[in-house]
Amino acid sequence: MEIAILLYERFTALDAIGPYEVLSRLPGADLAFVASERGEVRTDNGMLTIVAERSLDEMRSPEIVLVPGGPGEVGARAGSEVLEWLRTAHETTTWTTSVCTGSLILGAAGLLDGKRATSHWLALQTLAGLGAEAVSERVVFDGKIVTAAGVSAGIDMALALAARIAGEEVAQAIQLGIEYDPQPPFDAGSPEKAPAEIVALLRDRSRFNEEAAARR
Amino acid sequence: MEIAILLYERFTALDAIGPYEVLSRLPGADLAFVASERGEVRTDNGMLTIVAERSLDEMRSPEIVLVPGGPGEVGARAGSEVLEWLRTAHETTTWTTSVCTGSLILGAAGLLDGKRATSHWLALQTLAGLGAEAVSERVVFDGKIVTAAGVSAGIDMALALAARIAGEEVAQAIQLGIEYDPQPPFDAGSPEKAPAEIVALLRDRSRFNEEAAARR
Repeated sequence: MEIAILLYERFTALDAIGPYEVLSRLPGADLAFVASERGEVRTDNGMLTIVAERSLDEMRSPEIVLVPGGPGEVGARAGSEVLEWLRTAHETTTWTTSVCTGSLILGAAGLLDGKRATSHWLALQTLAGLGAEAVSERVVFDGKIVTAAGVSAGIDMALALAARIAGEEVAQAIQLGIEYDPQPPFDAGSPEKAPAEIVALLRDRSRFNEEAAARR
Repeated sequence: MEIAILLYERFTALDAIGPYEVLSRLPGADLAFVASERGEVRTDNGMLTIVAERSLDEMRSPEIVLVPGGPGEVGARAGSEVLEWLRTAHETTTWTTSVCTGSLILGAAGLLDGKRATSHWLALQTLAGLGAEAVSERVVFDGKIVTAAGVSAGIDMALALAARIAGEEVAQAIQLGIEYDPQPPFDAGSPEKAPAEIVALLRDRSRFNEEAAARR
């Protein structure tokens, strides 16, 4: 089962590595990180380099496509190569998936028209502007398109996907293998739960906040 | 604030990348992946290559050390270079930390004698054999040594650490930034919660199960 995780400059690492850690454990997984060209790709903060071991040309028809998010999604959306690859791959995938603002790339490729989909909580309006019915849920299935909320939500998505692909027992074995029994020290992981001033701080600093951007 | 995340052949990616995604967001973080030599390091399943951008020699006194786990820990424990680096670095760290079986490397370096510490649930006995008081908890602080349970527990540990270093508000802002509001599809992330047959399956397949290994 070919699984392609798309890389591009300035992606967010955990968006990709969370699902990788789950999906790579599926029986028969042939998982590869792909980019326009083989070689090193740097993450959003410049502190981590991951190697794309295959080019897009070398993986034209994976069964599963996963698109991570990150500030580099703007560049990915602006170029035609990634979008064309996504459109072509999507024709034959079993599952086309994204984490965080990766859904904006799926949207820019025209794959989310009228579909229920999610994204990072700060990017839901932008997602709606790309044709999707943007919903604030952690993991959203709409046909073969599966989208996850911000960054860490890719782990939950990948486990849900693992259950659909290989059954609940396999998914549970993977969950126990990675000891995914989350115990966050705070209950601040969503805008509904975090203190209002912290939500406001992140909203104000966000690149999706046009009002604040205009003030700067 | 220098943060060194140790890499070695056949480490488990999420052990390192979960905490990276949290700690790299701390104000003033100068985070680097380090290994015996600069260059490419492959993960446990051979499907992912990460670049160590600094050698151990280039980062002798980081404030924070993080040691991930993975089957390659056996090799790391057998060599003297990593252990010597850890012993020296630990003399001046503010925090010396591990995720999953990374604690076995800390133990082999002699840093856990009499310390409360944890590891992957399958490795707790091995951890006890290395001098630690092994406890089944998700995140364990003992002085400046902080250890986390299996793989995904590094995210919880890093958030707890972020709060100690920069305050609860910063930690909560990071948590909201990575939208860490976990919603696993199953409640199977610990041996106490997972179905007994799945616990037995993983225990039987485990490289830490000497009885099963003797049968093979």
